[in-house]
Amino acid sequence: RAHRPIRPMATGARVPSLFDSLDTFTHRHVGPDDKEADKMLAALGYSSMDHFIQDAVPAHIRIDPANVSDEAIPPLSESELLLRAGLLAAQNKVHKSYIGMGYHTAVVPPVILRNVMENPAWYTQYTPYQPEISQGRLESLINYQTMVTSLTGLDISNASLLDEGTAAAEAMVMAFAAASQKKKDFFIDTAVAPQTVSVLRTRAKGFGINLIIGNASTAFTNGSHDICGILVQYPDVNGLIRDFSSVAQAAHDHGAIVVAATDLLALTLLKPPGEWGADIALGNSARFGVPAGYGGPHAAFFSVTEALKRKMPGRLIGLSKDVTGQPAYRLALQTREQHIRREKATSNICTSQALLANMAAMYAVYHGAPGLRAIATKVHFITQSYFDALTINVDDASALHQVAEHQCINLRRIDAKQVGVTVDESVTPDDLVNLINVFAIHLSKPVVTLPDILGSHVGASATISPSFAPSFARTSQFLQHPVFNTHHSETEMLRYIHHLQSKDLSLVHGMIPLGSCTMKLNSTSSMIPVTYPGFGNIHPFAPIEQAQGYQTIIKELEEDLCRITGFHSCSLQPNSGAAGEYTGLSVIRAYHESRNEPHRNICLIPISAHGTNPASAVMAGLRVVPIKSLADGSLDLVDLKDKAQKHKDNLAAFMITYPSTFGVFEDGVKEACDIIHMNGGQVYLDGANLNAQIGLTNPATCGGDVCHLNLHKTFSMPICVAEHLAPFLPGHPIVKTGGSKGIDAVSAAPFGSSSILVISWAYIKMLGGSGLSKSAHIALLNANYIAHRLKQHYSIRYKNGKGRVAHELLIDLAEFDKSAGLKVADFAKRLQPTESETLEELDRFCDAMIQIRVEVDAIIAGKQPRDNNLLKNAPHPMSVIALPEDKWKRPYDREAAVYPLPWLRERKFWPSVSRIDDAYGDLNLICECPSVEDLADS
Amino acid sequence: RAHRPIRPMATGARVPSLFDSLDTFTHRHVGPDDKEADKMLAALGYSSMDHFIQDAVPAHIRIDPANVSDEAIPPLSESELLLRAGLLAAQNKVHKSYIGMGYHTAVVPPVILRNVMENPAWYTQYTPYQPEISQGRLESLINYQTMVTSLTGLDISNASLLDEGTAAAEAMVMAFAAASQKKKDFFIDTAVAPQTVSVLRTRAKGFGINLIIGNASTAFTNGSHDICGILVQYPDVNGLIRDFSSVAQAAHDHGAIVVAATDLLALTLLKPPGEWGADIALGNSARFGVPAGYGGPHAAFFSVTEALKRKMPGRLIGLSKDVTGQPAYRLALQTREQHIRREKATSNICTSQALLANMAAMYAVYHGAPGLRAIATKVHFITQSYFDALTINVDDASALHQVAEHQCINLRRIDAKQVGVTVDESVTPDDLVNLINVFAIHLSKPVVTLPDILGSHVGASATISPSFAPSFARTSQFLQHPVFNTHHSETEMLRYIHHLQSKDLSLVHGMIPLGSCTMKLNSTSSMIPVTYPGFGNIHPFAPIEQAQGYQTIIKELEEDLCRITGFHSCSLQPNSGAAGEYTGLSVIRAYHESRNEPHRNICLIPISAHGTNPASAVMAGLRVVPIKSLADGSLDLVDLKDKAQKHKDNLAAFMITYPSTFGVFEDGVKEACDIIHMNGGQVYLDGANLNAQIGLTNPATCGGDVCHLNLHKTFSMPICVAEHLAPFLPGHPIVKTGGSKGIDAVSAAPFGSSSILVISWAYIKMLGGSGLSKSAHIALLNANYIAHRLKQHYSIRYKNGKGRVAHELLIDLAEFDKSAGLKVADFAKRLQPTESETLEELDRFCDAMIQIRVEVDAIIAGKQPRDNNLLKNAPHPMSVIALPEDKWKRPYDREAAVYPLPWLRERKFWPSVSRIDDAYGDLNLICECPSVEDLADS
Ligand SMILES: Cc1ncc(COP(=O)(O)O)c(C=O)c1O
Ligand SMILES: Cc1ncc(COP(=O)(O)O)c(C=O)c1O
Ligand SMILES: O=C([O-])O
Repeated sequence: RAHRPIRPMATGARVPSLFDSLDTFTHRHVGPDDKEADKMLAALGYSSMDHFIQDAVPAHIRIDPANVSDEAIPPLSESELLLRAGLLAAQNKVHKSYIGMGYHTAVVPPVILRNVMENPAWYTQYTPYQPEISQGRLESLINYQTMVTSLTGLDISNASLLDEGTAAAEAMVMAFAAASQKKKDFFIDTAVAPQTVSVLRTRAKGFGINLIIGNASTAFTNGSHDICGILVQYPDVNGLIRDFSSVAQAAHDHGAIVVAATDLLALTLLKPPGEWGADIALGNSARFGVPAGYGGPHAAFFSVTEALKRKMPGRLIGLSKDVTGQPAYRLALQTREQHIRREKATSNICTSQALLANMAAMYAVYHGAPGLRAIATKVHFITQSYFDALTINVDDASALHQVAEHQCINLRRIDAKQVGVTVDESVTPDDLVNLINVFAIHLSKPVVTLPDILGSHVGASATISPSFAPSFARTSQFLQHPVFNTHHSETEMLRYIHHLQSKDLSLVHGMIPLGSCTMKLNSTSSMIPVTYPGFGNIHPFAPIEQAQGYQTIIKELEEDLCRITGFHSCSLQPNSGAAGEYTGLSVIRAYHESRNEPHRNICLIPISAHGTNPASAVMAGLRVVPIKSLADGSLDLVDLKDKAQKHKDNLAAFMITYPSTFGVFEDGVKEACDIIHMNGGQVYLDGANLNAQIGLTNPATCGGDVCHLNLHKTFSMPICVAEHLAPFLPGHPIVKTGGSKGIDAVSAAPFGSSSILVISWAYIKMLGGSGLSKSAHIALLNANYIAHRLKQHYSIRYKNGKGRVAHELLIDLAEFDKSAGLKVADFAKRLQPTESETLEELDRFCDAMIQIRVEVDAIIAGKQPRDNNLLKNAPHPMSVIALPEDKWKRPYDREAAVYPLPWLRERKFWPSVSRIDDAYGDLNLICECPSVEDLADS
Repeated sequence: RAHRPIRPMATGARVPSLFDSLDTFTHRHVGPDDKEADKMLAALGYSSMDHFIQDAVPAHIRIDPANVSDEAIPPLSESELLLRAGLLAAQNKVHKSYIGMGYHTAVVPPVILRNVMENPAWYTQYTPYQPEISQGRLESLINYQTMVTSLTGLDISNASLLDEGTAAAEAMVMAFAAASQKKKDFFIDTAVAPQTVSVLRTRAKGFGINLIIGNASTAFTNGSHDICGILVQYPDVNGLIRDFSSVAQAAHDHGAIVVAATDLLALTLLKPPGEWGADIALGNSARFGVPAGYGGPHAAFFSVTEALKRKMPGRLIGLSKDVTGQPAYRLALQTREQHIRREKATSNICTSQALLANMAAMYAVYHGAPGLRAIATKVHFITQSYFDALTINVDDASALHQVAEHQCINLRRIDAKQVGVTVDESVTPDDLVNLINVFAIHLSKPVVTLPDILGSHVGASATISPSFAPSFARTSQFLQHPVFNTHHSETEMLRYIHHLQSKDLSLVHGMIPLGSCTMKLNSTSSMIPVTYPGFGNIHPFAPIEQAQGYQTIIKELEEDLCRITGFHSCSLQPNSGAAGEYTGLSVIRAYHESRNEPHRNICLIPISAHGTNPASAVMAGLRVVPIKSLADGSLDLVDLKDKAQKHKDNLAAFMITYPSTFGVFEDGVKEACDIIHMNGGQVYLDGANLNAQIGLTNPATCGGDVCHLNLHKTFSMPICVAEHLAPFLPGHPIVKTGGSKGIDAVSAAPFGSSSILVISWAYIKMLGGSGLSKSAHIALLNANYIAHRLKQHYSIRYKNGKGRVAHELLIDLAEFDKSAGLKVADFAKRLQPTESETLEELDRFCDAMIQIRVEVDAIIAGKQPRDNNLLKNAPHPMSVIALPEDKWKRPYDREAAVYPLPWLRERKFWPSVSRIDDAYGDLNLICECPSVEDLADS
């Protein structure tokens, strides 16, 4: 434990600000206090923060601090924020929703709500790039994949996509790619959800795909050989359970891919798509215990046949083994994942919805097949020959909706004569009575009571047979793996959750060392409102008057983000960083088109860019032209000017990450933007690193026209644009969003992952202007302090002219390959990362890095063999440390292996497996829960 | 992981009950499902549950199952319960409270709320009898003790008591005992809180102490040599900061003990009691981040001078070392704790408020001295020369209260001309404006605004000096230990909490093997409402109309408990099992008095009784006469009859635990009760084991007159009584409770630990009658199944005539002392307990026990030395397993030490220290955080 200096007791207590609540957020969120910051500045040779910032951030892009000040964004204390969030939640009217269309009122098992969704040991984890310390969440994601393949009847599932609409878009592009981009038509059945169709329209545009909408059964009747794929919905958006087997047959006869948008709950009773010929199944898994949250986030599922498996987008968890032969999970095909095929990409998907996929998987673990089937049987019983949705013809839909609203009931608005009713797990007998009485009141008939409608069914044990045609009934078993048949009591479920948790290193232990993608802890006060029912149980297509709490948050968040970025307008619809890029570029394309320059299709991108950048450009129909970097990591302005001028007539955009992914604020950013504008292009600024800019500079000042921001680092995944681009922000087919000339939807829900906008909103409101700006100052200081402490031991790859890095740094380890036979992974696996933001934590991290350097020296000096040493053998799990005497064949002792530094005796985190064999895993792709026999064999 | 049989897929889905929600609670709470129960019954040789129950529970005490049926207590689903709890919470009106009197609106730091209070890895822990796997919570409790001694300026603190009232009663009895019970007077200053005085009245009665109430400064003026102690409140109940140093001097001159009821926050600014002569300091620590919850639970603090330390009641955490010399925490003076001095007791305190003490300690860790001082300065600034409370003279208090209530403000009701105002951390400037305007409106003066009242103080950094007399100012430092000076950012705090958590075995890992006291998991749905603001932020003395949600819960809970126990009335005021015993016996005494038999003072108690039973009897002024047990563990009815007749004229009560603490349903219970009644006595039934009775029998049917129930096993700690005892249930000086001839208060709050009544209420409502009864059936089955599996390996101490145990069992290990030199602790420390209620978990537990037996055999056979073997050396922490080769001097290998059973490879829990040295700890009693130097030395 630490030694902060104990301050002498003053006789008169110092009150920082007498009426400031003691629960102000900034001093809880920002690690180093003023004294520690002063020490760090002194170590770097500065007498003040200002001097340091002058060296770190170019002067010509600095902004007036008044832009992001407490006057501009007044800080709320944690209590004030929670009070206000509670009031806003109460302004969202939680009506009983029968709107359906893929969004349901989830019944979240409380044990999962509290121990997964509300638990920082689960919600702070990010991409499991270091599988040895992520076996818990990897096991849960494998459970998810197993659940999806088992229910859809297909061979392989990924670890989730962003939503049903974008998943359908991914499927469409897979079909297009499968036919080598030669067949340009994609067929959509008329009864596919309208929001999905809208997202497909946007995506089709970039690839030049032609959408045909019609009745699926006639798609191939006149031999349409230009159709690369067909999308049907099963059951369809109106609730019909249709037999698509002959459509699938016809499609396959024509070499087209069959895509089924479907529903996991329905598949517990219905024949799964994999059994009637679908090649791809996808949909929204949120009804498995994830709140609707006004649209998201949730995990979209996506599964494919064996034949398509290596073409499937998204992250895939696989089973491999560790060097001792123990089975161990990992992110499969990681090379693909990390480099996203860049210019050749057909998908830019990067972040998946791990937390939400884990919740859905846990829900299946908790209920098991019999439980899921019982839930399905209930909703099916209510709607009878449909699965869970009915379309009802009425004389006057709008009058009926009025009656319903009066009863706090929302029905689906189809048109003037039709309303939709979708039933979910949450519906109780009383709800049903109220629902039926909406129709009774509307028709001036007598109202009914519970016994009237349920008759002998209430409370009686009954074996009911599904009331649809027997040919649709599922006969195959599902979820037979023990994991879905064991943890059905709350105590067992709790223990399973905590058991997996205990295998994972997360932010509750220390830093997650991911550079650009490093997460920080979402504060409890920003997480608490997310699970308020007033935020969780709002349907994304609920009338806007019922979502006034959300609308206030959306408005305030948009205003604050515009203030922070310096831009004019904002869209919150994209649901990942990559989706933001894609949206921003699509907006730029629409802008060029509106000026009659649709031919502008060149996108300049520095080679250092994150893999999603070129991928997004390709998806938006742009051609990527790479721009070189100079030796010091900065943009080659000469090359940029060259390429810009060369492509002058067709220049659409330039994408730049700022500060760069090499961790520097480049001096030339403004000049670069000028070059682009002079040549008719627009500048896309990847704002993933925006946390280093706030209050110091902003994308508008740097010269950008549009940017996105990333929740997992700073706020959320909105995009912000300059005024001239505002009209093109994305729209939505059901709820009005975006600009007057808006592009089609980029995600299924009008405001994207709305429920987590609450987090970003709370974060901004609690820090307030000065806190936001302070967090950027300290982010820069922390990174530079680390660089300073490590520079005698390692070479820091990139610095600016003044020797400063931005908010992250790259350490060059290449030299050790030759001198000690060590690869980057050997360092990473040995590192037990423990950084957080305080000085003490930073020092621990640096001490660990320096200790590793000592271990390296022992190898270089030949004191330890190159192939059997502390680094090569890292990590050391408990099972290895407990080896019997005769099996411990290492040239160092066990204490050296597990306690390289003294404080680890107190704070050791134990990995559960040894180094994992990636090559083995990629060769033997197993992406489902291993059977008990498999585990026994190994 | 497990292999539950995978059930064949039925073509028509079986719906247990078509409209049953799938979130019914019983199948989540009860481990074994029907198939597993059948297997277990078969293993025991029964073809049905009924046959088994016939053998386990005596026929003549069985009740009609209709008593506890779904008709009697209809079950709610988890969703329904949460809905109803939300509605009830909304019926509690959260007014801004200035009532004070020891209860404040706490500001719970969100990181503590979510990661301690709402986290099953913290809230399920119970008494740390096995310190090796409890180092986390022990460290936190040591932090608590350090905080208390540091703030009160005294030498040693216990790990908490139940509330301020009962803590004051403990102090009084200590003073009485210190003078060898010879001095009968105890002096109470007039300005002590009335609820404390009421609790003292009750307690004084049992010991025959005479209470004198008057102005403390005149207590000793006429040489009162009969005063054993004096209680003052500092600051006093009216907010005055009084100088008690000369009172203390006078008291000491007269050989009396000085007790100060005080306030931890005030002590950050005021001279601590230890510095002006108090011998004992006590009070409520809840304002350190624990919600008021309509009265509790919260931790009362209690600290004493060095001279009194071995007389201090309650649990005490001490620092010792483990066998390797590492520092390690433990429950100190455990022998005393577990046996509670029985007939010689002066205190019956057993359960402490560990969770709430941990929250208060974490609050101090998070804020540190500067933070606490800043909070104190704020409340002090508002009330100026008082600390945080004012008493204001008004013309018409009741009119003023009306105005206040209209503004949703509660003031303290003192009398017709005086009102009280107490200010706490939660008060914002806006609150202050509203408060002042209550007076303005009342006086028809113009209302004020924020700038009016704060003037230049708002937002300004200021160093203000306390405005009380300098002689009262604290000059000594406090909370200087690093633990209070390190974890001040949310990220650091989170990591500290999780770091401690990782050292503790809790219900999230497996069973807590405590026999009679075994906890089961409180379900998430019963915990969720506890932290709703509508339950948390209600002052216990708020007008009853504002607490209608609570009142409904209290009424429903009382009704259900009466139904379950078969009794007539109920009091929820006692706040522990022991307090329930004491209350019940006090009620019995009051009953005898009302019949003009005050001389009845003999209490018969079987020698097998839990230590709290005789202690409670002594405290209630009864003389304990022990009753023998027979060899089979049952009550010696001959001895009982003998003693009952012998003491016929003075017989007050008989206390019996049922099923007994030996784990059997004794046949003779009814006969025993008859014997007592025939001899004029009343029967107290200790209902700690009531979970084995529900729906099968009940205390009334067994022949009891009063019983208590224990939350940590079944419900809560209420007592239920037969009709003739109802008039004597305890009252309260501020809020009307209890019977027409009620005894004085037994705890400071009218309804005891009200906020956790919500847990008991939710538990009963969700299980419903049939679920409650089922849980009793399965508890019996589980215990008998374990007995069956272990009987070939161990001898089971007590069984009934049919060979059956009740809900728990005692294993006799005495034989191994001789045969292998092993003590009970050697078994317990080797056991990595993993029981829960499912068959699979029970089997794992039994397998572990049987494996231990194998290890014992190796010692008996001489294959392992008696002093250096797996059992003697258990537990094996990581630091021991990682010893270098030359230091591993054990006659077994490391794998045998850590993986005695194969499934432990997957589910290992690592203790953080080796076997702890109790003798060393008791000799060297260190009950504060060890200094950094101490830790470095060891
Ligand atoms: C610089 C940069 N741009 C874009 C992204 C893509 O964001 P996402 O994973 O949310 O799609 C990342 C990844 O976090 C990134 O680091
Ligand atoms: C049989 C019995 N009676 C009484 C008690 C005392 O209860 P408490 O610890 O709540 O005071 C216990 C302990 O749990 C017990 O096991
Ligand atoms: O708490 C007891 O174990 O008595």
